[in-house]
Amino acid sequence: MKKAVVLLSGGLDSTVTLAHAISAGYDVVPLTIRYGQRHARELKAAKDVVAFYKLKNHVLIDLDLSSFKTSALISREIDLPERASSGEIGLEIPVTYVPSRNIIFLSIAAGLCESVSAEKIFIGANSLDYSGYPDCRPEFFEAFEKVLKVGTKKGVEGASIKIETPIVLSTKADIVRMGKRLGAPLHLTWSCYRGGEKACGRCDSCLLRLKGFYEAGFEDEISYEARA
Amino acid sequence: MKKAVVLLSGGLDSTVTLAHAISAGYDVVPLTIRYGQRHARELKAAKDVVAFYKLKNHVLIDLDLSSFKTSALISREIDLPERASSGEIGLEIPVTYVPSRNIIFLSIAAGLCESVSAEKIFIGANSLDYSGYPDCRPEFFEAFEKVLKVGTKKGVEGASIKIETPIVLSTKADIVRMGKRLGAPLHLTWSCYRGGEKACGRCDSCLLRLKGFYEAGFEDEISYEARA
Repeated sequence: MKKAVVLLSGGLDSTVTLAHAISAGYDVVPLTIRYGQRHARELKAAKDVVAFYKLKNHVLIDLDLSSFKTSALISREIDLPERASSGEIGLEIPVTYVPSRNIIFLSIAAGLCESVSAEKIFIGANSLDYSGYPDCRPEFFEAFEKVLKVGTKKGVEGASIKIETPIVLSTKADIVRMGKRLGAPLHLTWSCYRGGEKACGRCDSCLLRLKGFYEAGFEDEISYEARA
Repeated sequence: MKKAVVLLSGGLDSTVTLAHAISAGYDVVPLTIRYGQRHARELKAAKDVVAFYKLKNHVLIDLDLSSFKTSALISREIDLPERASSGEIGLEIPVTYVPSRNIIFLSIAAGLCESVSAEKIFIGANSLDYSGYPDCRPEFFEAFEKVLKVGTKKGVEGASIKIETPIVLSTKADIVRMGKRLGAPLHLTWSCYRGGEKACGRCDSCLLRLKGFYEAGFEDEISYEARA
């Protein structure tokens, strides 16, 4: 059976990506990287999703990025933007950008692939609805595959690790529809940048999620403090 | 003043690389990544080297790679090779290979560069004497620079992070000579794969180091249990 490492944050996008990898017949190894982010609530979601699929091999890796002070997602010294202050979503790189996050995540996933003999990494990156992060674009993933070809044992041995980005060009509505079609547990996922009991309904991530559900014509079953 | 992140393990190669970056006029940010390796002794060396240069900004990042079971450097279930069992050094990828280690290290260094507004990463990788790791070769670093160009905020903004590998084509003897010329504290460095009080003098890393000092015509001032 083909084996793949799937980066799973516990958010909507990575959960739909996991559902896709499973439906495509992969023996999946879910990988969650705890990097000291504010929204630790997401980690609970990741564990709930793994339990939903009855997977026994969830790999959790701790990485302390508290030295990276520029990102609002890990530093408490920077305020999170709300809608009014952040301008149009996706037009500029927001302060929630974690420096080189997907580069770091893919690197660790690649190491795990070598460790467990997996042939692919699935990552739920999205270049349309994902607020303009440079490490979510197709040309980034192509460049990274080249690194894996020349820089890993598997690559040198002719069995280079491939990166699959099944939702990279999807709208949030497409992702919701895909998740519904695959029976993914969207009700267990967490997208809010804040870590409260309920999703805030106001941060960029909540707004994109709510718009996606609305446009796809489905009800978002998680609880919100408020809705825009 | 130009700023650079320097990956510093506390070994000979990274210490000479740090000395090079300082002598080239960089405001250096030494970065040491603690990834659960056996030779924690190296970390003491890194701190001693930083103290030698009176640097106040040593960044230590913890990354738990204990899920990567295939490498002898982080797993206790795999025996370290001694000379007789490992064949000729450098002809095949050894069990001490940590999957994707330099990919992971460069990724974290790139994030730190973005965080502290540094323009370069210095890494003491070496493709000649470094036991055949694929992520120590020049083509790997070129591919990684491409990733940084398309996948980071700095890259997208036209100020892409560069990777400097000043000793990538040097022999170990060249590295020792360069360190001596730059006044680097080679006596504080640690290369042994084992974590004892004294260096073992028998592992691949000790053998390469001793050969380098011998060929360069200098005495290695650290203590050894035994010498081949």
